[in-house]
Amino acid sequence: MATFSKKISKIGVYTSGGDAPGMNAAIRAVVRVGIAQKLEVFGIHSGYIGMVDNIIQPLQLRDMANVIQRGGTILKTARSTEFMKPEGRAKAAANLKAAGIDALVCIGGDGSFRGAHALWEEHQIPVVGVPGTIDNDIYGSDKTIGFDTAVNTALEAIDRIRDTAASHDRLFIVEVMGRNSGFIASHVGLAGGAEEIFTPDGLTTVEKAIDHIKEGIARGKTSSILITAEGQKPGRAYDLADSIRKKSGMDAKVSILGHQQRGGSPTAADRILASRMGAAAVDSLLKGQCDIMIGTEGERLVTVPLDLVTKTEKKTQIDLISLANLLAT
Amino acid sequence: MATFSKKISKIGVYTSGGDAPGMNAAIRAVVRVGIAQKLEVFGIHSGYIGMVDNIIQPLQLRDMANVIQRGGTILKTARSTEFMKPEGRAKAAANLKAAGIDALVCIGGDGSFRGAHALWEEHQIPVVGVPGTIDNDIYGSDKTIGFDTAVNTALEAIDRIRDTAASHDRLFIVEVMGRNSGFIASHVGLAGGAEEIFTPDGLTTVEKAIDHIKEGIARGKTSSILITAEGQKPGRAYDLADSIRKKSGMDAKVSILGHQQRGGSPTAADRILASRMGAAAVDSLLKGQCDIMIGTEGERLVTVPLDLVTKTEKKTQIDLISLANLLAT
Amino acid sequence: MATFSKKISKIGVYTSGGDAPGMNAAIRAVVRVGIAQKLEVFGIHSGYIGMVDNIIQPLQLRDMANVIQRGGTILKTARSTEFMKPEGRAKAAANLKAAGIDALVCIGGDGSFRGAHALWEEHQIPVVGVPGTIDNDIYGSDKTIGFDTAVNTALEAIDRIRDTAASHDRLFIVEVMGRNSGFIASHVGLAGGAEEIFTPDGLTTVEKAIDHIKEGIARGKTSSILITAEGQKPGRAYDLADSIRKKSGMDAKVSILGHQQRGGSPTAADRILASRMGAAAVDSLLKGQCDIMIGTEGERLVTVPLDLVTKTEKKTQIDLISLANLLAT
Amino acid sequence: MATFSKKISKIGVYTSGGDAPGMNAAIRAVVRVGIAQKLEVFGIHSGYIGMVDNIIQPLQLRDMANVIQRGGTILKTARSTEFMKPEGRAKAAANLKAAGIDALVCIGGDGSFRGAHALWEEHQIPVVGVPGTIDNDIYGSDKTIGFDTAVNTALEAIDRIRDTAASHDRLFIVEVMGRNSGFIASHVGLAGGAEEIFTPDGLTTVEKAIDHIKEGIARGKTSSILITAEGQKPGRAYDLADSIRKKSGMDAKVSILGHQQRGGSPTAADRILASRMGAAAVDSLLKGQCDIMIGTEGERLVTVPLDLVTKTEKKTQIDLISLANLLAT
Repeated sequence: MATFSKKISKIGVYTSGGDAPGMNAAIRAVVRVGIAQKLEVFGIHSGYIGMVDNIIQPLQLRDMANVIQRGGTILKTARSTEFMKPEGRAKAAANLKAAGIDALVCIGGDGSFRGAHALWEEHQIPVVGVPGTIDNDIYGSDKTIGFDTAVNTALEAIDRIRDTAASHDRLFIVEVMGRNSGFIASHVGLAGGAEEIFTPDGLTTVEKAIDHIKEGIARGKTSSILITAEGQKPGRAYDLADSIRKKSGMDAKVSILGHQQRGGSPTAADRILASRMGAAAVDSLLKGQCDIMIGTEGERLVTVPLDLVTKTEKKTQIDLISLANLLAT
Repeated sequence: MATFSKKISKIGVYTSGGDAPGMNAAIRAVVRVGIAQKLEVFGIHSGYIGMVDNIIQPLQLRDMANVIQRGGTILKTARSTEFMKPEGRAKAAANLKAAGIDALVCIGGDGSFRGAHALWEEHQIPVVGVPGTIDNDIYGSDKTIGFDTAVNTALEAIDRIRDTAASHDRLFIVEVMGRNSGFIASHVGLAGGAEEIFTPDGLTTVEKAIDHIKEGIARGKTSSILITAEGQKPGRAYDLADSIRKKSGMDAKVSILGHQQRGGSPTAADRILASRMGAAAVDSLLKGQCDIMIGTEGERLVTVPLDLVTKTEKKTQIDLISLANLLAT
Repeated sequence: MATFSKKISKIGVYTSGGDAPGMNAAIRAVVRVGIAQKLEVFGIHSGYIGMVDNIIQPLQLRDMANVIQRGGTILKTARSTEFMKPEGRAKAAANLKAAGIDALVCIGGDGSFRGAHALWEEHQIPVVGVPGTIDNDIYGSDKTIGFDTAVNTALEAIDRIRDTAASHDRLFIVEVMGRNSGFIASHVGLAGGAEEIFTPDGLTTVEKAIDHIKEGIARGKTSSILITAEGQKPGRAYDLADSIRKKSGMDAKVSILGHQQRGGSPTAADRILASRMGAAAVDSLLKGQCDIMIGTEGERLVTVPLDLVTKTEKKTQIDLISLANLLAT
Repeated sequence: MATFSKKISKIGVYTSGGDAPGMNAAIRAVVRVGIAQKLEVFGIHSGYIGMVDNIIQPLQLRDMANVIQRGGTILKTARSTEFMKPEGRAKAAANLKAAGIDALVCIGGDGSFRGAHALWEEHQIPVVGVPGTIDNDIYGSDKTIGFDTAVNTALEAIDRIRDTAASHDRLFIVEVMGRNSGFIASHVGLAGGAEEIFTPDGLTTVEKAIDHIKEGIARGKTSSILITAEGQKPGRAYDLADSIRKKSGMDAKVSILGHQQRGGSPTAADRILASRMGAAAVDSLLKGQCDIMIGTEGERLVTVPLDLVTKTEKKTQIDLISLANLLAT
């Protein structure tokens, strides 16, 4: 953790990377705790784009009315190619300094935190990160904001798909989000009673899945659901269906859940997590701490150096997948 | 409407074609009204497959406990190629007669009703149809069982997608079900505030949609959602995205809602519709009426000859689409 | 129906009485259709209170962004005692004239329409009504805005209560809203599989309900749910539980669903109904029609004189209650 | 932790006390892991009642199909007065021995665990407990099965109530479950943006709440929601409303959420927790461990002696309440 001694009076908050349900609850916490601590709080629009293009506005207590339950992010989010270059970051830093902003809270994922770290390294602007991504793939925090909501949204869809799978005695492959990580897939698979879960970790094979399904059929099961994480890009489920068809003759229907997993009113857990993390981020800045992310370890909040966060891979919980396999017999 | 004079004492009920939420509520109504009227009621499994293969079981009052709220169909459903041939239907009719089943209630769509009509024409087995399909594309009934639930399921997904579309200032194309009909698309599009709705009726063009989106951008809109019915087969949304990209340079994200639209606990409207229709179907049989479908005209139930139902096309409500266009400015 | 010949260029819209989900969709339709028709549209705050106190603001296309899916009413609503007196109405009329407002769209229920009728009678201000109330108790329209949402909200609660009733083999009495009308009770009761439905129509008695429950127990039923409309004021369910206890010794748990039934994101049906009605109200005013309410008859929109609407009682659908009784055996 | 050396081949599972969403997922895990480990698994109906009255049935893999998503408990639950007496427990123990049941998994709360501990102490029947209660008031586990679902159910109701509170500029008092504990109240209050949270811990007073609301009004807030835990018995909210009325003249609407909080399909978190705990309970028995409860500490499962669980009070997280206060400004 880095520290700084400058007394801060103005802070900025922004959301960056993919949006996640609960980001608004985190923004609300930053604004209201900030103002309660006599700080002025500014909202930076569309993440690093607003920082580079100087779209920065003061936020008041009343701007945060009725945002805790809203999905998406009222500050908007985007990826900035300009900020990836040193000149872009210099421009951003100049804008922040011109606005008198002493420190930042960055709500986002891995890529966003690399940018935050660079702002501190190159321009000595103190930043505290708050992990906001539905993928839960951030090292240093058991849970990220938006993950619980995304899992429940996917689960509702799977419960619905099971109705139609059971009515038609069908095999379904449902593709969930999660990029290169298997967190959504493993949680949704266990909670949804899926027969097999394919994650980027490569724990299972098409052959094993086929065996598993056939054993189920032998025991009287007439329908099955396989879950797959999207992997490098959406569409993997179609390849899987092809492969199963070729190797077993079984016909699988495909459903790609897609972007609905990003939106929606956040669950209680995500609103609470976001509120606590947003508040803790401001507290850390007030103590002169920076270049860190607020994370959770069980029920407790912890701080983790940003550098460590972005350079370490968080492993999927393999035990959930083997438990799901055992239970879906 | 055909009539028959034989006094009935045993009836069969089956679900056929694609499953739809509320089918179980209709089965429950048939069973409980049937038994209240001193009939024995039999469940035929997997539609015409169970009829041909003689998978027929008696249903009791208690079998219907806790099914009103369940999606899918407890009797299962399928498409039978054997039943499409005269020999298959002869086999089915023989099974029904052997079981002493005097009359049938068929819960399904167009194709199912053609089979039901053939049973009456060829084998004098009285059948009353109940329209169960999420597509709402059945002539003779304002509403079909499952349509309201499917529209609400799709709408929830679109509300979620709007969160992420707004957060990223994006254009989304969302593909809903409905085969060759535009009912789901038009209702979801109006209710979801969609900027443009593409249905098989071909009311709009890619060019018009692009103009509409650009006008919205000029007025300050930063995100848009287009709805498209799936058409002949799922995937049309990708072609649409390509076409928009080529003609305008605008990049559209695609989401295909898929099979989740078929499942889930039915809405109040679908449970009520299904309960009323199931009860009315038994009443019609008891009056010696058959070869008809129970339909709705507004709040009232009506009966429509099956032959008319299957030979007439139901038109999409075009006025909903133009209203949606007008309101999404 | 009254008519007027003045060409209108400015209209006002307000919500009045109890709030209902879908009111915002109706406001949106009034504003956007109005502006499309080259009208200026003004929002009057808190119903007749804002009219009397002159809290009136212009509404633009962009003010209607993202309101279609929101519960409650962005214009707020209230009951005004001042407006009930002639002087209050005179003050309101003077404010409207000073603002140049030529005509009004009133979204609300019975009481609101009496006020609207008085404005026309006493001050020749043309008003068209749009029925917005969860109670569905407005003569002249099969459905009112908010009813479908309220029924589904209550149904979800009842589905949950059935889980715990079944787990504990318990008798539950669930009280739903609806003031003096039995619409919510009858629809929720049928859709929720309730054993008995008590409405202000007095169709059943405690004795009959006890008999019905005991018959169910004899057939193997171990839990039951009774639905009661709130009647004159909330709390009737407790009296019912007392009465059942005294007459049968059976112990009933009580749940009063309360105000949650008023809120929430509107269902597809309510958003569509509200959009169509709001648009039709503006169309009527442009045709010089007033002192009417927009209603539905089945799928069609109709117009009904306000005087008739407020002086005629709409009857609960008794057939739904007897069907519910028959099906919950 | 106690240990036992007898090799087990038959185990029983039961649910006891108040039902909680996720209990079925726990039963499923016990049955399927048990059978995978070559055990026979028996279901004991209605908790200790079925143990005393010998209502015990074998459970197979297929009995667990489609139960993971269902609320309530398929084994039913109840409180047994007979089991509270030594003779009742002796009878229960005799029944278990007669059935050849070597060990038990008890899914329930405090009272259920006292019974389980007594079975071990008095009759040397090994029991492992799994904490299933919506109240989350079990020492030794961060989370109990059903808590997450109950909090989300209450939160949905509060989101709806906020719509109507905001539309009418009203003050609402919403009473949530939780008996003598403030877990549901504190979580729902923070997640729902409540202005004040009353828990049995007595952290706030009516006077403080009134001050808080008045400050909000001074800042432009027009509606507020207070959350109260039910305390000793439901109805506390009415006393609170009276007290506020007397001391401030402010009129508060009351909503008691009631039993709907116990039911409904479990959230992903509850299904996962229940699956993990059910599996771990069987594993512990196979290792010869008993007289313990499976708990969670963050993401990890732990075991805690039953005696400690039932004799130690779990404290409400006071920091959530003060954070909620700070954020609802």
